[in-house]
Amino acid sequence: MKPFPFRAGELYCEGVPVREIAARVGTPAYLYSCGRIRERYGQFVRALGGNNNLICYAVKANDNLALLRLLAGEGAGFDIVSGGELYRVLKAGGRASRVVFSGVGKTAEEIDYALKAGILLFNCESESELRLLSERAVKKKIRARVALRVNPQVNAKTHPYIATGLREHKFGIPIRDAEKLFVSVHGWPGLELAGLSCHIGSQISDLAAFQEALQKILLLAGQLSRAGFPVRYLDAGGGLAVPYRPGDTTPTIAAYGKAIRWVLNGHDLQLIVEPGRSVVADAGILLTRVIHTKSTGRKQFVIVDAAMNDLIRPALYDGYHEIRHVQSRRRPVEKCDVVGPVCETGDFIARNRDLPAAEPGDLLAIFMAGAYGFVLSSNYNARPRAVEVLVDGEQWRVGRRREKMSDLIRGEGLD
Amino acid sequence: MKPFPFRAGELYCEGVPVREIAARVGTPAYLYSCGRIRERYGQFVRALGGNNNLICYAVKANDNLALLRLLAGEGAGFDIVSGGELYRVLKAGGRASRVVFSGVGKTAEEIDYALKAGILLFNCESESELRLLSERAVKKKIRARVALRVNPQVNAKTHPYIATGLREHKFGIPIRDAEKLFVSVHGWPGLELAGLSCHIGSQISDLAAFQEALQKILLLAGQLSRAGFPVRYLDAGGGLAVPYRPGDTTPTIAAYGKAIRWVLNGHDLQLIVEPGRSVVADAGILLTRVIHTKSTGRKQFVIVDAAMNDLIRPALYDGYHEIRHVQSRRRPVEKCDVVGPVCETGDFIARNRDLPAAEPGDLLAIFMAGAYGFVLSSNYNARPRAVEVLVDGEQWRVGRRREKMSDLIRGEGLD
Repeated sequence: MKPFPFRAGELYCEGVPVREIAARVGTPAYLYSCGRIRERYGQFVRALGGNNNLICYAVKANDNLALLRLLAGEGAGFDIVSGGELYRVLKAGGRASRVVFSGVGKTAEEIDYALKAGILLFNCESESELRLLSERAVKKKIRARVALRVNPQVNAKTHPYIATGLREHKFGIPIRDAEKLFVSVHGWPGLELAGLSCHIGSQISDLAAFQEALQKILLLAGQLSRAGFPVRYLDAGGGLAVPYRPGDTTPTIAAYGKAIRWVLNGHDLQLIVEPGRSVVADAGILLTRVIHTKSTGRKQFVIVDAAMNDLIRPALYDGYHEIRHVQSRRRPVEKCDVVGPVCETGDFIARNRDLPAAEPGDLLAIFMAGAYGFVLSSNYNARPRAVEVLVDGEQWRVGRRREKMSDLIRGEGLD
Repeated sequence: MKPFPFRAGELYCEGVPVREIAARVGTPAYLYSCGRIRERYGQFVRALGGNNNLICYAVKANDNLALLRLLAGEGAGFDIVSGGELYRVLKAGGRASRVVFSGVGKTAEEIDYALKAGILLFNCESESELRLLSERAVKKKIRARVALRVNPQVNAKTHPYIATGLREHKFGIPIRDAEKLFVSVHGWPGLELAGLSCHIGSQISDLAAFQEALQKILLLAGQLSRAGFPVRYLDAGGGLAVPYRPGDTTPTIAAYGKAIRWVLNGHDLQLIVEPGRSVVADAGILLTRVIHTKSTGRKQFVIVDAAMNDLIRPALYDGYHEIRHVQSRRRPVEKCDVVGPVCETGDFIARNRDLPAAEPGDLLAIFMAGAYGFVLSSNYNARPRAVEVLVDGEQWRVGRRREKMSDLIRGEGLD
């Protein structure tokens, strides 16, 4: 489906004119298409489901409760990276038995919380973490199911901030040390070593990179099995790219699934994948209104009411987001910078972009904002965080209300 | 004063051992030294006060209410960039008559709020904004006092994200267009054109750059006065650098004041300056505890409980922050990356840093975190935001409590 079609020169989210939502909830506003999220999740299920395989949505991409509730309803598992994300998943009705806990910095409190909830699997990234996990599990007189996160030394060609598969990265255990650690940890009283996991980065278009990583992990699994340590779970991580720029070509979910199944063929393992961005990115837009326009002679600026505190991907990752007028404008195209009101040169949404001339009051849609959008938003410049809206067919509702002034000072002694 | 002295091998904030605060409020925690903030603000008053000159603290650097209250008590004015910041200033007991409102994207609602509060001055950055301001003031049957923010075309050598003085930046009005705009706008019914302002960027060590900008603005003020449009206020902006790295040399506040007074000598103008970072940066630390350590063979990692959601300066601006053990450690020095638990390679506090070997449980202090620290923090990875603590002599108190899990989902329909 096209979650954001133009009809008679006007942008819709599924069956609802975007303009109508903006008139009701104001701007800036995040809009998510429920239909699109279901569709993308369903594609993962068809590509890799069955055989007890588990699609664990990576909560960090977008942790809105209503969105998690939707995915839980579809049967999704969840990949979490903090106690806060577990709290969100459980509040949204997600089942702990379908939760895997990733991340390099799990604290004792977070481990206790996850043990108590009874999650499926801890993806462990260091001996220090394994020791802590074993201790905490012993205290509770249980065994924690563990997958060792292995760093397969595959160089995924992506932004340096989101590549994770090399030895200079903080993630995982170097593959050459993994067998020794697996064996030495095997007897620890609080652990049930049950699997291997890897995650080579984010925004990866090269299916061969996924295959190479997985082949290395399978090789290790084979060695471990032959040594008497059978591997039950294989967590292939996430990282499938989505197209941000016009003309970007990225593999389909079906092709990704096929590539992974090809490598796994004949192996008796329960597969876990952790897609985040690829489930929600293109299901979301950030809606913003033009406040002012100005020219400095050298440059044309369109100043909008969304800023880097609402969407930091352009400043932080040099992220590109398509921008279009919500109501098609027959105006001359101008090259402009679309910027927010925050007092920083780094506060931009787009630079040197060709857009039909904008005027104060115009509504603009910033595309591919469903992932790593609201979750990274802050109150910088004392700006209340945006509203999040879920659209489903002809229906829409607020998933998270816009913050009020009084929310800004919560916890500072006046509330 | 030294806000963070070591005594008997242990870090203090003023008169309180930092370790004691951590034991009570947990980590990560921001600690601010009230004495140091008073001292730095006082240096600005001595350097540039008197003659109705106004030191307007730039709220965006750190907008904690207790900190604003402290500065209001010292007689500070405030430089705001949003309605939210005005709300904070008023809640903290700041006087609207000492507030200047900067920023490129003031909305009608924000303008109405500021007009109603009766702020001193609007720093306006575009004709579009002047038009809106005049309209809103006319509706209220008042005149808004305005300073035209002029872009003096001075290249401040600083990080590209915080340089603001060039034509390719969104800020200000090109100086060659300013006189024409000033004159043409003069008759607009809702405006009282009263001043000129400029701000060439942040983290500027070159006093000559400040002087060059100011000289250009003074030249313009002279032209305007001769044309019958007297200029009463001159807002010189902020931007004085602070030393982040050991060995960084930055001008003293006294030297900065002297440089500015030298240029202004003989001019009958009310000066406004807008220091932010230089008032609060070195008055703050971020306190964090080591969760795990790990080695990947190539690299040593110290994983701490503060992450990019708590302090984004390293990832966003390539910002450098000194790190030290809260309790001096006689351990071999290791080269390590200090990283947080967030699942991103961009989540680091420091890279390739020499530190006495760290162990789980160790407390570390991240210095120069008083400015652009907490204000940029987010709930990324569903991480509750840190606690903020104010220390004054032997006393300390919580300025903002640590967020709870339930704060994470506020506004999502379950609260």
